[in-house]
Amino acid sequence: MKTKQIVLASRPKGSPTLDNFRLETVDVAQIKDGEVLLEGIYYSVDPYMRGRMNDTKSYTPPFDIDQPIQGGVIAKVLESKSDKLKTGDIVLGMLPWKEKDIASEKNLKKIDTSVAPVSYYLGVLGMTGLTAYFGLMNICKPKSGETVVISGAAGAVGVVVGQIAKIQGCRVIGIAGSDEKTKSLKTEFGFDETINYKTTKDMKQAIAALCPKGVDIYFDNVGGEISDAVIANINFNARIALCGQIALYNSTEIPVGPRLQPMLLTRSVLMQGFIVSNFQNEFPEGFKHLAEWVKDGKIKFTETIENGFDQLPKALLGLFKGENMGKMIVKA
Amino acid sequence: MKTKQIVLASRPKGSPTLDNFRLETVDVAQIKDGEVLLEGIYYSVDPYMRGRMNDTKSYTPPFDIDQPIQGGVIAKVLESKSDKLKTGDIVLGMLPWKEKDIASEKNLKKIDTSVAPVSYYLGVLGMTGLTAYFGLMNICKPKSGETVVISGAAGAVGVVVGQIAKIQGCRVIGIAGSDEKTKSLKTEFGFDETINYKTTKDMKQAIAALCPKGVDIYFDNVGGEISDAVIANINFNARIALCGQIALYNSTEIPVGPRLQPMLLTRSVLMQGFIVSNFQNEFPEGFKHLAEWVKDGKIKFTETIENGFDQLPKALLGLFKGENMGKMIVKA
Repeated sequence: MKTKQIVLASRPKGSPTLDNFRLETVDVAQIKDGEVLLEGIYYSVDPYMRGRMNDTKSYTPPFDIDQPIQGGVIAKVLESKSDKLKTGDIVLGMLPWKEKDIASEKNLKKIDTSVAPVSYYLGVLGMTGLTAYFGLMNICKPKSGETVVISGAAGAVGVVVGQIAKIQGCRVIGIAGSDEKTKSLKTEFGFDETINYKTTKDMKQAIAALCPKGVDIYFDNVGGEISDAVIANINFNARIALCGQIALYNSTEIPVGPRLQPMLLTRSVLMQGFIVSNFQNEFPEGFKHLAEWVKDGKIKFTETIENGFDQLPKALLGLFKGENMGKMIVKA
Repeated sequence: MKTKQIVLASRPKGSPTLDNFRLETVDVAQIKDGEVLLEGIYYSVDPYMRGRMNDTKSYTPPFDIDQPIQGGVIAKVLESKSDKLKTGDIVLGMLPWKEKDIASEKNLKKIDTSVAPVSYYLGVLGMTGLTAYFGLMNICKPKSGETVVISGAAGAVGVVVGQIAKIQGCRVIGIAGSDEKTKSLKTEFGFDETINYKTTKDMKQAIAALCPKGVDIYFDNVGGEISDAVIANINFNARIALCGQIALYNSTEIPVGPRLQPMLLTRSVLMQGFIVSNFQNEFPEGFKHLAEWVKDGKIKFTETIENGFDQLPKALLGLFKGENMGKMIVKA
């Protein structure tokens, strides 16, 4: 049996291009005891994947050259030599970008398809939602009446953070990169105010105008000059969760900016970088809250779905151009 | 009755000079019920005072032009109309730089002179010691075997932080600005390793060499390029306490440097600015530990004492030239 796969052909210098990927056809291995044959349905593309394309130390190891890209995948069991999984089951795993693959039952989680659309397990009910939940609740510790600013607010994580912050009684300001996105954040997702950073000349002033009492919580997916503008308005005892720095991922030099420490010092600000796996022991609790909120309609979710396995590299590159509203997914 | 006082004559642009201060002779007010007449013994000079010379929002309000500088003072009661304090008592207060002054009993704390030299209440048993204690214990949460780097290690706070870290079983590396200071940190205060930043060409490499397992805790009194070098060696899940930024206090422009967020993000690092009063409710507990450690000889303290009330401005300026080992104090 043959399958398509997408491998890392070369490491990007600066912004990645389609040339950094290669589509191949290879043999599928023989299935052994404890394993299943899978066919991918939904493939997650995420900003953190850019970091794994570099050959540098980070919280996840780099992708290897000539080896398939890996990520979150929802797949269907076509054949099983596992006692735990049967043909037709829908599973979630960190899997290679292959149309078909053999995987061990140990690396797969069976999905309850009655709770929500299965793609949600890559998003609001998966790593994305848990990232939003723990970054906001455990690091930022929102209190009712506080002002929360979110950069990359129309991204998969941002849109969930904003809705959880509203549930906690906060005032929520979202920063995004198009009028379509900012409009959607207000009308569909209940954000109080929004800023289109692409059409705003003085971001520092724009944030000051929308946050007359200052910024108590900054959930940062973006970094760079947007963050400079938010931090210039930061309050005493504020909390900043560093979830992503998408504005800087394609930098070829070490980015330079105003030094943060004097501001963080004089205003007693906390800044915490994190990755969702830091909160692994609390995943069940986070999932429980997210599932309830989704079920009760308190959290809405949104996806940008590209069709066709071959579109995976293009969809990933699209993240860095802000082509997604909410979670970016490829449907095989 | 007349007294000398030192007022802020003008706000400094960049590094302060003696011209920014003015020595005056003024009348002492009449003593009223609930008040005492004080004569200053020891006057604290501290890096944070530089911030109060600017007209900018910070954790403490700016000094007023033509008004006395204020700071921690140990004084003797010369005359009392208070039921709580009697002539001869030794007190601590946030007081103006005056040789003699009238003060309300409400703003004074009587000192137990049997515990340690009275000047220690401006240092290891005062704000300095509490700053070291809470910055290290509550923010950095040291674990036995971890590597702790301290900038400004020979300063009043740094020298206490290092000794508390040693009590917690950590490996302690101190950064200071002279061979005399680094030698003293090792031989007198039990630091494991030290770096003289003034004679070290490649700080990043020097820290890497002394911290083969990376930096778990960075207690930062200094900021600027020294911090860049330490943070380049920071570990996953490290904690950075921002206690001071003395390298930047005299900057006239917003200091620029490498952006920190990518490093803090990919290594799940916490950075927390603080001021000791954030931990006000826990002062009694911190004081108890510090007093025990001083009594048991587990923490040694060191002071640089300048003689003469008129020397206060010179002593303050000396802090920015690194003229002090340990706590800088002026004895009237």
